[in-house]
This record gives sequence, C-alpha cells and structure tokens, in this order.
Amino acid sequence: MQLTQTEWSTTEKRIAQAALEIAKEREINALVATVRQRATKIHEFNDLWHLHDFLSARRYDLDGKYDPRNATVIFSLAGLVKEGWLKITELEGLDQEKITKVSAMTRMI
Amino acid sequence: MQLTQTEWSTTEKRIAQAALEIAKEREINALVATVRQRATKIHEFNDLWHLHDFLSARRYDLDGKYDPRNATVIFSLAGLVKEGWLKITELEGLDQEKITKVSAMTRMI
Repeated sequence: MQLTQTEWSTTEKRIAQAALEIAKEREINALVATVRQRATKIHEFNDLWHLHDFLSARRYDLDGKYDPRNATVIFSLAGLVKEGWLKITELEGLDQEKITKVSAMTRMI
Repeated sequence: MQLTQTEWSTTEKRIAQAALEIAKEREINALVATVRQRATKIHEFNDLWHLHDFLSARRYDLDGKYDPRNATVIFSLAGLVKEGWLKITELEGLDQEKITKVSAMTRMI
C-alpha cells in the first residue's frame, strides 16, 4: 500500500484542507473548554507549570497534525477520524482509494 | 562596587532565601490570578498560544530569579524590590553593605 507518494488533485487538496479545518475547529473548541476548566483549578506554582506543560504538548501535537503541507496528510486524516474529530463521510470527494486507505488505517490501531 | 564575590554568612543566606520565598509567593499569587483571568477570555486557537507564550516567558523568568543558588542573588533581591514583590525592610539581617547595594541598585534603573 503506497502512502506517501499518492497523487492529490487540486480538488482533493481542497477537500483535505477543508476536512482539516473542520476537525481543527472541533478540537480547538474542546481544548479551549478544557483549558478554561483547568484554569479554574489553578492554585499554586506547580499548577501553573502543569498547565504550561499541557499546552506545550498540545501545541506540538496540533501544529503537526493540522499542517496541510504535510506530505503524509493521509495519516493526519486517519488520525483525526480515529480520534473522532472527523467523520469519514466528511472526506467525500477524495478518490475511493484514499478513503479506503484512511478507513483501513483507522482499524489498524 | 564588588557584586558577585560578596561573602554571605549562613544567617544571611537564610535571610535571603526567606526573602525570596516571600516574594515568590506574592508573585505566584498574582500570576495565578492573572492566568485564571486570562483563561476566561480564551476563545480561539491563537488565544491558547498567547497564553502558552505568556506562561513560557513567566516560567523562564521565575525559574531564574528565585533560584537561591544564583551567585548573583543580590541582583534578584534588587529586582524583586524594584518590582514591588519585596520590601527593603524584609532584607533586615543582611549586613548593611548588602542592603545599601540593593537599595542603590533599585535606584539605578
């Protein structure tokens, strides 16, 4: 199964980009709610740095997975479906082979 | 004016350490309040990373200035007095030369 050399048409790139945007918005909304909730529980020094560490990790994760220039965007899409931020039906318009790959990947882990 | 080779007695080290602790607690309390307040205003992606950047900068700052092993602890004390986290009277017990130096430094900037 060839993954990284897959050809993407302009339309498919647009669809992938739109899917990333949708998932990103959902994940960010959830993260905003989490951070606001955690902030209410900050009482001391270490709580601040726990929040900081949490944000550092989330930023690293999010910066990578929502980068549309990523050559392995198909992995990002599969990850987002697996995590529940994206529905497989929201990839409609990609060629069937890619959708099948994404679907197969989500069952691999 | 010799600054970094100053001798510190055991008592003075204890006093400096206690002064750092007092100032740290005050500054942390203020920072906790600021972070909780800022968190209520987080609405989107960039707000999260602004909070993250803010915490990164504060952490870097605080880790350095409250390190009692710092050979230049007198600068930390002067900085804390200048910033209002410590009163010069809370350095009572240090020898007069050090207090005079701290006091002079706070008027230099």
